[in-house]
Amino acid sequence: MAKQAKNAISPTRSEDFPEWYQQVVREADLAENSETRGCMVIKPWGYGIWENIQHQLDQYFKRTGHQNAYFPLLIPLSYLEKEAEHAEGFATECAVVTHHRLEAQKQEDGSTKMIPTGELTEPYVIRPTSETIIGAAFARWTESYRDLPLLINQWANVMRWEMRTRLFLRTAEFLWQEGHTAHETKEEAIEETRMIHGVYEDFLRDHLAIPVIPGEKSEAERFPGADMTLTVEAMVQDKKAIQAGTSHFLGQNFSKAQDISFTGRDGSVQHAWTTSWGVSTRLIGTLIMTHSDDDGFVAPPRIATQQIVIIPVTPKEDTRDAIIDACEALAKTLRAKQFHGEYLRVHVDKRDIRGGDKKWEWVKKGAPVRIEIGPRDLENRKVCMQRRDQDAFDKSFLDKEEFIQNIENTLQEIQDNLLQKATEFRDANISECSELNEFETYWDQDQPGWLLTPWAGTTEEEETLSKKHKITIRCLPLDKQDGDVAPCILTGKPTKTRAIWGRSY
Amino acid sequence: MAKQAKNAISPTRSEDFPEWYQQVVREADLAENSETRGCMVIKPWGYGIWENIQHQLDQYFKRTGHQNAYFPLLIPLSYLEKEAEHAEGFATECAVVTHHRLEAQKQEDGSTKMIPTGELTEPYVIRPTSETIIGAAFARWTESYRDLPLLINQWANVMRWEMRTRLFLRTAEFLWQEGHTAHETKEEAIEETRMIHGVYEDFLRDHLAIPVIPGEKSEAERFPGADMTLTVEAMVQDKKAIQAGTSHFLGQNFSKAQDISFTGRDGSVQHAWTTSWGVSTRLIGTLIMTHSDDDGFVAPPRIATQQIVIIPVTPKEDTRDAIIDACEALAKTLRAKQFHGEYLRVHVDKRDIRGGDKKWEWVKKGAPVRIEIGPRDLENRKVCMQRRDQDAFDKSFLDKEEFIQNIENTLQEIQDNLLQKATEFRDANISECSELNEFETYWDQDQPGWLLTPWAGTTEEEETLSKKHKITIRCLPLDKQDGDVAPCILTGKPTKTRAIWGRSY
Repeated sequence: MAKQAKNAISPTRSEDFPEWYQQVVREADLAENSETRGCMVIKPWGYGIWENIQHQLDQYFKRTGHQNAYFPLLIPLSYLEKEAEHAEGFATECAVVTHHRLEAQKQEDGSTKMIPTGELTEPYVIRPTSETIIGAAFARWTESYRDLPLLINQWANVMRWEMRTRLFLRTAEFLWQEGHTAHETKEEAIEETRMIHGVYEDFLRDHLAIPVIPGEKSEAERFPGADMTLTVEAMVQDKKAIQAGTSHFLGQNFSKAQDISFTGRDGSVQHAWTTSWGVSTRLIGTLIMTHSDDDGFVAPPRIATQQIVIIPVTPKEDTRDAIIDACEALAKTLRAKQFHGEYLRVHVDKRDIRGGDKKWEWVKKGAPVRIEIGPRDLENRKVCMQRRDQDAFDKSFLDKEEFIQNIENTLQEIQDNLLQKATEFRDANISECSELNEFETYWDQDQPGWLLTPWAGTTEEEETLSKKHKITIRCLPLDKQDGDVAPCILTGKPTKTRAIWGRSY
Repeated sequence: MAKQAKNAISPTRSEDFPEWYQQVVREADLAENSETRGCMVIKPWGYGIWENIQHQLDQYFKRTGHQNAYFPLLIPLSYLEKEAEHAEGFATECAVVTHHRLEAQKQEDGSTKMIPTGELTEPYVIRPTSETIIGAAFARWTESYRDLPLLINQWANVMRWEMRTRLFLRTAEFLWQEGHTAHETKEEAIEETRMIHGVYEDFLRDHLAIPVIPGEKSEAERFPGADMTLTVEAMVQDKKAIQAGTSHFLGQNFSKAQDISFTGRDGSVQHAWTTSWGVSTRLIGTLIMTHSDDDGFVAPPRIATQQIVIIPVTPKEDTRDAIIDACEALAKTLRAKQFHGEYLRVHVDKRDIRGGDKKWEWVKKGAPVRIEIGPRDLENRKVCMQRRDQDAFDKSFLDKEEFIQNIENTLQEIQDNLLQKATEFRDANISECSELNEFETYWDQDQPGWLLTPWAGTTEEEETLSKKHKITIRCLPLDKQDGDVAPCILTGKPTKTRAIWGRSY
């Protein structure tokens, strides 16, 4: 099992990127497919990342005044019928519950088969998203302007019956958070939409080491039922885009469909202005595709399931117990230290298997820091440190006390390195383009990057161009909308608008 | 809205206990019914309790070596068919997914109706519990004895199509944790089952201030498919029992049905020994029924959504800002202090409504400590403290610094008082009984307590007695099985076994 050469993952990224991704997920033991169509099992090493994302992102939500709550999994069909555009957007991928019991039926071969019975008079769908059911609650809760704003978030599972699935990136069931808010004024609701958009940008950069392009979606790419969709777009290593999080200003579309109304300050009855926003376990897929290499997964320290793995190296029986004790003592010391306000997550791998196998297992699983302690290290009060952001064969022999003193810096350095590398990669693969010819031939290459163009086309023109080159407008990047007037790349109309185009997951 | 007299909740407990419960849930704003049959909306004040339960109980699981993971919501019907007893136990209450898309159909009146289409060749049930789907994963993960034990926990929603529901206590969808473990030997699996049983007992006592009777379920009351079910039974204020948590030793029943097998130390292929265990949002219902009074909910400090609510009393405009600043400053000081390793949860209620209304709102919501600061308090550096475990009209005027110094003790005192009160109530309502006559007439009274009896009856005899008096054996209490031999209350057979009987939710 121990590898002498590099490339613990086969194929490599350049050989076959999609297959490399599947192998990284598998070798890092993050998740696996199940027998439930399109649904994955998130294994402990992958779920640990989700727990850290949940915990850390939740603090942003709470600090900005949001409260968590929980709403039913099943949505009455009649709710979906109220907002037509929204219903249409999700109709083709809804899991529908039609019965509420099973009856055992003996088969001819003696076996038993379970048959659905107890047909429901009104079927339910498993939530693909909860605007409609949370909106119904908001309608009950909102009488006066004094009841606003409502600032609610839910951590939940949702289901969209996708035809082609890929672990973490696109699964029929996924885990997410969905924020839903209702406001007295349009301005407040837009401000909320933008504020959360900023939270997502900060969170991805500072916690996941993923640099994103924040921007607005074009009308064609908006959330069904939204007036404005803001997105954070990540570029992964095959230069495709992943929509990593979205924040929607819903205007009064849902509040009118669901009668979320209140008596305003002037005594008149008004409809609330609502927003919704979410990130999902898709973030884990984005994370894997952003940082991993041909040796496997690379976890940024802030969200790593375990940040430090300590491996006792015990070639001889007589020093074995002392070495294991030293490893446990080091783990205990480290666990009392903090990194960004959380106690360090440290694992001691005491399994009775070959050291080389252990090492490569933790390389593939992406543990940020690996520590080995052997007989000589024990004697000299040293540790052998290996970092996942460095070559798998690099080693530093450090004074143990010095290592402990510096651990926070070390982790932050790894975090910063990953962010820097991803940022450089992204920036090297976005180009400005103002010539249609150049634009059209750009997409013929293998693994094209993203193009930034002046844009004033219609939705139909956008869709024609998108279909032709299998691209989409990823976003209208926020920081590029106030520059010079230039001719639209397609129509030549003068415009300040800039669009980013690319392939995507 | 401000009450002059006691009894903020109507009816009181003695007038109508079930209706009192509904009103407490409503007035404390903990949860409400939704339009999804039998499913509730858990509102922020109720969900905060669940977040605290999750976070605190999860630490017990992690400390004892368990890891969290996530498994699919939908279970293929074929999985359920494998363990017959288990399937039968849940068949009558399964939500069944039969279709995977909707089609909009125009109605004669011009409206649109959504019709399920895309029928599945194999339907799925929404998990009522996950033994079967997690067992299928365990079967994939287990090759050698080196892969054992598997110690997995999942925080998830589950669904059981209950006919009669009651907020928190019995709902079609509920939130829970379900632990699933697989072991090499029978002894290890039984040890795990007992260890978790102990965790539940400790957690309920120390965190929820709920004293439970730990015991084993009789065969009739066991989990479908288990060889042994351990339970923690709580007595609430109408003296009924609530099964607050269970831990099951599943023997090899599931591992044989699902082929969770491994190559043992001796090279032979063996079946694993499995366990499962869980607590749910039912705990919140148990909590409400245990501690609340005729003024509303009473939250034990350790799991209260907010532990301290600070109310600025601002009769005059000129001192208003200074008082609000003082309240915010106090909140900030308190939030930097800890109680059982968690930062204090403190809320400042700055709403512009009548002080009396505010006070009674927080009484009904059960905030453990209420603090008022008015103009005179500000001047004298005092605070007015009111405790939810004391009469709603009791007040203590405390030096502010002294209050801050003592806050941990104060919260612990409230926590201890609630536990003591609940323990005394429970102990006063459990009697020993060895005469069948006495036993039979006992159940004629309004709100009977629990009876402890010598028991050696069969399952049928148990069921006959249960039906006759609308009671069940709640458990065979662990600490009462090694006493004297006495004649079974029904059959007269000499036995060391003792059973606790009672009515239950």
